Amino acid sequence: MTKRGWIDNPSAALKIGEGFRLADVDPDSTPGYRGDKHSGAKDLASGFEELDELQERLFADSRAGVAKDSVLLVLQAMDSAGKGGIIRHVVGGVDPQGVTLAAFGAPTAEELSHDFLWRVEKHLPKPGFIGVFDRSHYEDVLVAKVRDLAEPAEIERRYGAINDFEARIAASGTRIVKVMLHISPEAQKKRLMERLDRPDKHWKFNPADTDDRLLWPDYMEAYQAMFERTSTDFAPWHVVPADSKWYARLAVQELLLEALEDIDPQWPAANFDIEAERARLEAS
Amino acid sequence: MTKRGWIDNPSAALKIGEGFRLADVDPDSTPGYRGDKHSGAKDLASGFEELDELQERLFADSRAGVAKDSVLLVLQAMDSAGKGGIIRHVVGGVDPQGVTLAAFGAPTAEELSHDFLWRVEKHLPKPGFIGVFDRSHYEDVLVAKVRDLAEPAEIERRYGAINDFEARIAASGTRIVKVMLHISPEAQKKRLMERLDRPDKHWKFNPADTDDRLLWPDYMEAYQAMFERTSTDFAPWHVVPADSKWYARLAVQELLLEALEDIDPQWPAANFDIEAERARLEAS
Repeated sequence: MTKRGWIDNPSAALKIGEGFRLADVDPDSTPGYRGDKHSGAKDLASGFEELDELQERLFADSRAGVAKDSVLLVLQAMDSAGKGGIIRHVVGGVDPQGVTLAAFGAPTAEELSHDFLWRVEKHLPKPGFIGVFDRSHYEDVLVAKVRDLAEPAEIERRYGAINDFEARIAASGTRIVKVMLHISPEAQKKRLMERLDRPDKHWKFNPADTDDRLLWPDYMEAYQAMFERTSTDFAPWHVVPADSKWYARLAVQELLLEALEDIDPQWPAANFDIEAERARLEAS
Repeated sequence: MTKRGWIDNPSAALKIGEGFRLADVDPDSTPGYRGDKHSGAKDLASGFEELDELQERLFADSRAGVAKDSVLLVLQAMDSAGKGGIIRHVVGGVDPQGVTLAAFGAPTAEELSHDFLWRVEKHLPKPGFIGVFDRSHYEDVLVAKVRDLAEPAEIERRYGAINDFEARIAASGTRIVKVMLHISPEAQKKRLMERLDRPDKHWKFNPADTDDRLLWPDYMEAYQAMFERTSTDFAPWHVVPADSKWYARLAVQELLLEALEDIDPQWPAANFDIEAERARLEAS
């Protein structure tokens, strides 16, 4: 079942399959969607209405103490690919009461003294909530691999540890939506240059972003290995072409919608006597 | 300086002054504002543009490591007064990356084993952030007083402890915006009845809300005492009439705007050599 301008379900169109090669994905394409920027804006607005009700039902279940399920959106990307825009314009459309957001930067000394999944576990969404990871445990097999912050054997161990970890949280009711926002080096150059040109964007620029940019092929190789090792049935990766911001936002919104539709949350039944409460309220 | 439909600054119109009496506030009034629901909706949209830029500047300072200031919005109210709507429709208009939200329910056993401010301290916003408290440490002088959960001497101690606590966080750069949403018992009855009438609202109803409703005069007395003891120059209370949801949302948005204008955050200066980075990026 498809809807709005989607020809294919976004999850089907964007999910990593057998023999997937990142190099084959055009960052400027709009897989599964037949509309343009204009229809995309309309579809995004329409998607919010649907998201709003589904999220409220899920949250209601948590308040009633009957929620078992949650959604975890994991965002990974090269710099300037649009993670911030997804959080602002897609996650920002959801009632903040039902969302928990965690941004993972370079680990602190305390975090480094623990296993790499320690800091992640603490930020998992509770039942009834949508959790969003701005970067995640995947940094530990991306930058860690590219910059030799860990031995190859340790990187190997981490792929397995991640799969075990995600299998456990999926089994406990978390729908894991993993997204790599995929931009082209050309689009990145343009976006980073704009950050240098505008004083109100300087704060978004970090010289380390250019350092990472110079290692682009290494990063793409690390992403490819990550997809091959950690895209599972219970927690598949999706590669979302992100040169068009409107498409990336629309696609991630639809992935969230699919996860919520899969949960299919229902309004919780009243755990009190409705007529008795009505009489009591009437008399008050 | 006033703007949009405001005749008086909302903070001036709504702040507790000498001789303030809660009983004198009409929950159906719209102090300081000359417009109606229609102009209120337009003003709310216009306020978001301003809030957006101010909040982004504040957040930028935090990313650049130069932020000293933060905003803490404290929301207290009788049930159904619209705290959730403020969070959804006012706080929800702000980039979620710059907002931390904490809802304080009945304290856990661990929380009860500490002083009442212990759990609050952990949720204070970092510099550069807007923190929102959905209920707060004020429950410990409201429900605690009305339901005799603490001795009168302990309630007295808490007023002083709160003032010391807030003086400390204000001195460290936090603008504290304390809001009581004030509805009439009649409006509450209507809203609670609607929750009973609609299956999609049952989850919002709690029989304890009616119990609290039956203690309305006691609660108003506890609020009055709270205002007299904890409305300070560095952390004044505002009573926002809330029978009209549109007005309450607009007023809280303006109070947030005033706090951000007081901070007057500036785009942080680049902490790198712009020309050198431009050359390096160009060559990449």
